[in-house]
Amino acid sequence: MSHNNQTNYDDTNIFAKMLNGDIPYHKVFEDEKTLAFMDIMPQAKGHVLVIPKQKAVDLLDLEPEYAAAVLMTSKKVMQAQRQVFEREGIIQMQLNGAQAGQSVFHYHVHLIPGSIHELGIHAAKQANSAELANTAKQLAAIISTL
Amino acid sequence: MSHNNQTNYDDTNIFAKMLNGDIPYHKVFEDEKTLAFMDIMPQAKGHVLVIPKQKAVDLLDLEPEYAAAVLMTSKKVMQAQRQVFEREGIIQMQLNGAQAGQSVFHYHVHLIPGSIHELGIHAAKQANSAELANTAKQLAAIISTL
Repeated sequence: MSHNNQTNYDDTNIFAKMLNGDIPYHKVFEDEKTLAFMDIMPQAKGHVLVIPKQKAVDLLDLEPEYAAAVLMTSKKVMQAQRQVFEREGIIQMQLNGAQAGQSVFHYHVHLIPGSIHELGIHAAKQANSAELANTAKQLAAIISTL
Repeated sequence: MSHNNQTNYDDTNIFAKMLNGDIPYHKVFEDEKTLAFMDIMPQAKGHVLVIPKQKAVDLLDLEPEYAAAVLMTSKKVMQAQRQVFEREGIIQMQLNGAQAGQSVFHYHVHLIPGSIHELGIHAAKQANSAELANTAKQLAAIISTL
């Protein structure tokens, strides 16, 4: 079994294209090592994804400095979600491998306001773009004050 | 809204007791900053928990060096799970707040061999202690070779 997937990294995956500026997205936060944006197929209102600016397929590839950076960005996003949605419960989830349900093969952390007991009950559907843009703006405004 | 929970950290939570050596557990891995052990109420065979040796209630409290350490330990555990269970799919999940489903208020990462599409379908039940001990031994043996 391979202990490193990086040779399998596909530069044409959708998050790679976003990082390259080739396709648009609703940005929540960006720093040197990470990018946070709205999930367009949210499992709940306010569902944000955080990705490292490293070509990592899954946790196996993630370098320590990016691991720390992704969690620190996730922390900021979670603080903003708690304030914007006035709820405490935030699920942090990250799927490794197609078998687990990973569908984009660039490491990504889900931050979902909600309860694990509700997760996946509702079928995912594409969210309204204007609503996502608005939510992204609200979250970004909070993060800028942290 | 509080931006830091650490003042709410309860020193008598079950993971604090484990870190103090007051109650037994099935150890998978330990280093200076983290501890990994078998979940006794597994959502799937091989369900492991990774905790920081920091009094953190949730992601809001986690310091960067512990964030990196928890993910690096999770990486080792995931590699071992993939080898022992001969499956690629590993769910990494971490719940923030009672509302999300967090039940022990010491930050903990779930590493669950399985698919997000199956998660939570089966009711959790306490696992056989001898089986957990055996799985912990298998995982620890792999990790020692990484």
